[in-house]
Amino acid sequence: MNGLDFQIEPIVDLALAEDLGQSDITTKALIPDEQQGVGSIVVKGKGILAGVQIAKKVFLRVDPCLKVDIYFQDGAELESGTIIAKVEGKAASILKAERVALNFLQRLSGIASETNRYVKAAKGLPVQIMDTRKTAPGLRLLEKYAVKIGGGENHRMNLGDGILVKDNHLAALRSRGLSMKEIITRVKQNSPRRFKIEVEAKSVEEAREAVDGGADIVMLDNMSLDEMRQAVKAIDGRALIEASGGITLDRVRAIAETGVDFISVGALTHSVKALDLSLELVGPE
Amino acid sequence: MNGLDFQIEPIVDLALAEDLGQSDITTKALIPDEQQGVGSIVVKGKGILAGVQIAKKVFLRVDPCLKVDIYFQDGAELESGTIIAKVEGKAASILKAERVALNFLQRLSGIASETNRYVKAAKGLPVQIMDTRKTAPGLRLLEKYAVKIGGGENHRMNLGDGILVKDNHLAALRSRGLSMKEIITRVKQNSPRRFKIEVEAKSVEEAREAVDGGADIVMLDNMSLDEMRQAVKAIDGRALIEASGGITLDRVRAIAETGVDFISVGALTHSVKALDLSLELVGPE
Amino acid sequence: MNGLDFQIEPIVDLALAEDLGQSDITTKALIPDEQQGVGSIVVKGKGILAGVQIAKKVFLRVDPCLKVDIYFQDGAELESGTIIAKVEGKAASILKAERVALNFLQRLSGIASETNRYVKAAKGLPVQIMDTRKTAPGLRLLEKYAVKIGGGENHRMNLGDGILVKDNHLAALRSRGLSMKEIITRVKQNSPRRFKIEVEAKSVEEAREAVDGGADIVMLDNMSLDEMRQAVKAIDGRALIEASGGITLDRVRAIAETGVDFISVGALTHSVKALDLSLELVGPE
Amino acid sequence: MNGLDFQIEPIVDLALAEDLGQSDITTKALIPDEQQGVGSIVVKGKGILAGVQIAKKVFLRVDPCLKVDIYFQDGAELESGTIIAKVEGKAASILKAERVALNFLQRLSGIASETNRYVKAAKGLPVQIMDTRKTAPGLRLLEKYAVKIGGGENHRMNLGDGILVKDNHLAALRSRGLSMKEIITRVKQNSPRRFKIEVEAKSVEEAREAVDGGADIVMLDNMSLDEMRQAVKAIDGRALIEASGGITLDRVRAIAETGVDFISVGALTHSVKALDLSLELVGPE
Amino acid sequence: MNGLDFQIEPIVDLALAEDLGQSDITTKALIPDEQQGVGSIVVKGKGILAGVQIAKKVFLRVDPCLKVDIYFQDGAELESGTIIAKVEGKAASILKAERVALNFLQRLSGIASETNRYVKAAKGLPVQIMDTRKTAPGLRLLEKYAVKIGGGENHRMNLGDGILVKDNHLAALRSRGLSMKEIITRVKQNSPRRFKIEVEAKSVEEAREAVDGGADIVMLDNMSLDEMRQAVKAIDGRALIEASGGITLDRVRAIAETGVDFISVGALTHSVKALDLSLELVGPE
Amino acid sequence: MNGLDFQIEPIVDLALAEDLGQSDITTKALIPDEQQGVGSIVVKGKGILAGVQIAKKVFLRVDPCLKVDIYFQDGAELESGTIIAKVEGKAASILKAERVALNFLQRLSGIASETNRYVKAAKGLPVQIMDTRKTAPGLRLLEKYAVKIGGGENHRMNLGDGILVKDNHLAALRSRGLSMKEIITRVKQNSPRRFKIEVEAKSVEEAREAVDGGADIVMLDNMSLDEMRQAVKAIDGRALIEASGGITLDRVRAIAETGVDFISVGALTHSVKALDLSLELVGPE
Repeated sequence: MNGLDFQIEPIVDLALAEDLGQSDITTKALIPDEQQGVGSIVVKGKGILAGVQIAKKVFLRVDPCLKVDIYFQDGAELESGTIIAKVEGKAASILKAERVALNFLQRLSGIASETNRYVKAAKGLPVQIMDTRKTAPGLRLLEKYAVKIGGGENHRMNLGDGILVKDNHLAALRSRGLSMKEIITRVKQNSPRRFKIEVEAKSVEEAREAVDGGADIVMLDNMSLDEMRQAVKAIDGRALIEASGGITLDRVRAIAETGVDFISVGALTHSVKALDLSLELVGPE
Repeated sequence: MNGLDFQIEPIVDLALAEDLGQSDITTKALIPDEQQGVGSIVVKGKGILAGVQIAKKVFLRVDPCLKVDIYFQDGAELESGTIIAKVEGKAASILKAERVALNFLQRLSGIASETNRYVKAAKGLPVQIMDTRKTAPGLRLLEKYAVKIGGGENHRMNLGDGILVKDNHLAALRSRGLSMKEIITRVKQNSPRRFKIEVEAKSVEEAREAVDGGADIVMLDNMSLDEMRQAVKAIDGRALIEASGGITLDRVRAIAETGVDFISVGALTHSVKALDLSLELVGPE
Repeated sequence: MNGLDFQIEPIVDLALAEDLGQSDITTKALIPDEQQGVGSIVVKGKGILAGVQIAKKVFLRVDPCLKVDIYFQDGAELESGTIIAKVEGKAASILKAERVALNFLQRLSGIASETNRYVKAAKGLPVQIMDTRKTAPGLRLLEKYAVKIGGGENHRMNLGDGILVKDNHLAALRSRGLSMKEIITRVKQNSPRRFKIEVEAKSVEEAREAVDGGADIVMLDNMSLDEMRQAVKAIDGRALIEASGGITLDRVRAIAETGVDFISVGALTHSVKALDLSLELVGPE
Repeated sequence: MNGLDFQIEPIVDLALAEDLGQSDITTKALIPDEQQGVGSIVVKGKGILAGVQIAKKVFLRVDPCLKVDIYFQDGAELESGTIIAKVEGKAASILKAERVALNFLQRLSGIASETNRYVKAAKGLPVQIMDTRKTAPGLRLLEKYAVKIGGGENHRMNLGDGILVKDNHLAALRSRGLSMKEIITRVKQNSPRRFKIEVEAKSVEEAREAVDGGADIVMLDNMSLDEMRQAVKAIDGRALIEASGGITLDRVRAIAETGVDFISVGALTHSVKALDLSLELVGPE
Repeated sequence: MNGLDFQIEPIVDLALAEDLGQSDITTKALIPDEQQGVGSIVVKGKGILAGVQIAKKVFLRVDPCLKVDIYFQDGAELESGTIIAKVEGKAASILKAERVALNFLQRLSGIASETNRYVKAAKGLPVQIMDTRKTAPGLRLLEKYAVKIGGGENHRMNLGDGILVKDNHLAALRSRGLSMKEIITRVKQNSPRRFKIEVEAKSVEEAREAVDGGADIVMLDNMSLDEMRQAVKAIDGRALIEASGGITLDRVRAIAETGVDFISVGALTHSVKALDLSLELVGPE
Repeated sequence: MNGLDFQIEPIVDLALAEDLGQSDITTKALIPDEQQGVGSIVVKGKGILAGVQIAKKVFLRVDPCLKVDIYFQDGAELESGTIIAKVEGKAASILKAERVALNFLQRLSGIASETNRYVKAAKGLPVQIMDTRKTAPGLRLLEKYAVKIGGGENHRMNLGDGILVKDNHLAALRSRGLSMKEIITRVKQNSPRRFKIEVEAKSVEEAREAVDGGADIVMLDNMSLDEMRQAVKAIDGRALIEASGGITLDRVRAIAETGVDFISVGALTHSVKALDLSLELVGPE
């Protein structure tokens, strides 16, 4: 997370603004300003921790005088009952920051945990689990960070940091009469040469055409295991191979065994299951 | 969505900025600026549509000359294969906007669909399905909108638009010797009187104390069905009742049958399963 | 003011930007960078202090090395000649921040002072003095904060944190043939149940209809004292009562004596008289 | 107001955001989306109109399909009962925008009206009524615009567009042994020469020193009428003269008659009395 | 420029804000609001046009009623005296927007023109002229766009869209005992595989080590022509080659003739010579 | 730079955001988080330092734990080989901030250096070298600051802090039949009187008319040396004189010798040559 503060502050402030509204009217009515407390962030499920520095930022943004002690760093494997961190200071400040801090932490830990399940499922095989651009609007940087924490690798951050010729590109150009080879030649000529060229293929035949046409990476889209095996054979080491589309935890090992280099999983970020965490406040200990 | 443009524009711009980066280098290299196309947004699953106006905004923000025809409005029940909308204009513009438009649409439709499953499960019973503040940072307004579209009701938008005395408040005050009745009296005196007072109860006894102490709404937190039935009996119509904590689709009808007025479900927004949608581009028809 | 920093920083920066422009050309031309000074913020009128922490923020935003000593906290009753705070450090920094710091402090103290005059006028009577949404654009949070400091209570912060059926709503629905009772029933069914329902009444008869129809709070709009007394009698404890419209300091006690629960005063924020303050700079003491 | 759109949009959005919150829950619950209406903005007091284009912007920002007909432009003298503008379209949109539009219009018209009272009081005399930098934080541009509409002239917009050597500058430099003449020489040498040099004087003697020292404009601060007359005589046409401090409507003509060129009035913006306006909604006509 | 509106608007607004300040006081004092005019943007030098759509945006942002006719598109070769565009409408609006529109246009056209000089100098040789990250803060997207218009290619947009192991990286790792080969292996293992690996070499020997170690692109930093020739020979087609450092227009052809694939030129953006343009206003024609 | 933090932070963040993108993928892949280093900023050319505090801000924004030691302050004359500052801390942080820090420093020092060349060329003559509004969009405040550091003076910061009647104003008004005298009278009557009136003249005759008409400053636009001499004679001390248009370093002394008071040079900011600086990283010393 180092060096990203200036990029994370706006989303932290946005999240606090939308959660505090006018300010916490319940807490203002009940908790005397001088009352101190200690809040413990406790795990109620099982998973990989991600986002603990952001949670800390949230508490300090609400009240710079809070003291946040972190017991586990991002990447730690958490068991139910574990205390991740303690926050000490004004009870009212802790209560105001609680929900936003947990919302970041639960979502990011959920992503890291799910990524890690895929990574473990493919353990021992020479394959990388990758994310996609199917992230919650505004949270891409953080969500891709959580994928890395979970042991995955990042696919494109945005449309500008990688070349990927997708089915819609192919369709648009074939309708003008271009062949796969001509399409790949065109993209090579018109784009910065520091990028490898990745091309999406919907069939074994298309995968072969892509690699023959000069693709550096071929994405096998929504193929059966059998098709993937044939595609791997057809490509025969001449390009890197990514499997994509309809990947589930059940199938991931079998897919990895076909010999592909990457498996990209939209669900890592588009269908997150939050890790269950809560904050428990006690009076000063 | 009317009247919220000025609140939605920033998140749309943020999402586009994080997805476009430098600009879409693949599309720039391949698709001639003058090439026209038609993109169809097609449903691949089953669910309730939410966010179609935001998807439209995304396309128009990228290229105000695109023509977006919407065939279904938010709230529509979608079948696999349905075409929700068509976008016509420069093929390059459609490709640039595609992912961001789908990211909003898939997430919000996922929320509306899941909400609707809970609503249907409790059909015929006098109960409201509600969301919580466990939303993705920055997206609360949109996610709560999707809950409404799915047939749910919105719990607090933020800490300023409702009074909810939670377990952490009770703990903090009991440690100073206050009784439930004194706590409720204090919150009434110190907060604007336009709000009903909601109090969290972890046991039947606490629920009784809350209503005896003057609570207008009692939240039954993480209770068994049996405890909920007893609490409903103890409260006996003197307050509204919300069931919360650990709600699942399996249990929701049984919970509704206990006689509670609201059931709030964190998973509606913290553990969203995106609705499967895709954009298919063809040449001008 | 605790926990609102992230919401106040933008308006502080905006205010400094509009006041400093290119930078303070007079001070730059005259005052050597190394010259030290002490500025005293002195009261020239009489009133209730509000906003001293914001004034401090302004000085520190211009120069984090300034030392700000605060002698009176918000809520203090000030006499002419009182020194509220002293600022010590570079004379140039003090001069640059002076006007913006005073602009916040004078306006907020003006609001707190005027609110307090109303509160004192109704002293001993069971009534709350409330503000309205008639605030200076961009300053609502701060202005409502000042009302609380002056002893008042906050009415709705925004259209989302309270239900208030106003004359324009009634007119729009009556033109479609709905009765008061039907209107109140509709608003209850279609809005979150954590809010009490407030309804505006322009006559005693309307007030009676509102409470008969199920209103929790009735706002008596622009009524004479006599009408208010009749309305209080007609409502007879079945709803809370707010007096609104044309409230002046002269009339406020008489209004309070009619038995209403709240008196809301637009002038508290729409027609503020700034408290007279100045900053006096002397060389290091 | 032309050419300032990009500067005004942010404050309009900020004002709408703080007023709408989650959205207008009362209107959403009551007014069907398809219901049309016409809202008339009606004057209830007497004064000079200012800000009608901003009010229009507010309505169009909430709903670009509203039709706003403006019957009076900024600067018009309004009588009670006058209809300034009509807004036609969705009733819900009109209700959502109402308060923010009126808040701008009432405040700016209040400033223009009060300015105009001063201008009229000094009618026929060769004097300009000027504002100060004592404006509501964030609203300076608009408030100074309203002063111009009321017939006044603008003093410095910010510390960067005018030279004004104030008492605090003089004190800081005299404590280092500089004479008035040396101070004025220094400011001339160290600042851009396109500005005239204005110097604050607290006595007739100081005014004489300032003009002898080379000041182009002398500000007479908090002087009695008699002192002002003497200062005018002492300056004898060698500099422009501004009267400042403690100016009231009662005294303004007498001050103008002393022969000063400008009279600056902090109260024009720091102690605004809003013009009374309201919006009345009727069904389609 | 299509599809980048939402990224360009903020810098346009920032530029207008810093140039207009309070508003154009000269124009306001002199030019009646109703006066119409036609402004011609005229070339006074010779060069390649870039940024004409941004200039148009500037005019329309100040006054959406201006009519902007563009006679030449970006990339056009301009002669002295050419009229690029005409702007018709309120004279005051044209004068307010003039400087900001020209500032963008002159800078971007200056960049495109200089780039084009390098491109022409290397004409006929299989080499690409590239920019660097040495751009004016805040203007990178626009400046890199202008380089493309001038016929150049873009190097990395930012540190996230390309791998470039620079001398400082090498130094930091060699100090820990790593060899070139180990460094390249490490970067390959730890970064997304869609990027080619570029490595900076300060000597022929280092260039050889880099390509032996697996670099896909070798950057020859500040080498003499003779060293470059030797490096090209040593690399012998096994990697792409970039020449960088101290490139001047005089030397560019000779460098291209050494056989390198890219020549990157910091001066294209860090030392821009603006193209001379002016706006001439005449009354309506 | 004091007191401008809140104005500079946004451009620093913008510059970092555009340079870091997703984050520095090369550094992340190569440099262990715990590795320490020391970076020296070394001068490779000759010039005047400007912007060293901004460079420091950049480093601290990326990593507040970096230690930045500054050896030379803005205004220092730098020789090739000089070390301006050292940055100590995490090597990765130093590498991430390097380019942005240098981009600011090289550009601002380039401006200060070029300004200083003009200042020195006119040394001993009673003339001020001034900038114009021809600055890079978004960087005006910083660029004008650099001009001051180089020994120059600032012309208008924006259209609101000075009166300058330009050729386009004159043309627009003459087309309506106004004489120079009438134009100057109008601008005096309609603008704040704290500004001197500057008028652009394209011929000696026009210069004479301007001063006869009451101009306080006359700008001689694009005149030959001979014309300037005649204009100086014609004006004969009755107004300040600015020479502008086509000023080069070769001609500046001769122009100064004609007796003008100011010489404004667009090239100071529109055609900057960056000062050559680099950052050299070594392991901890």
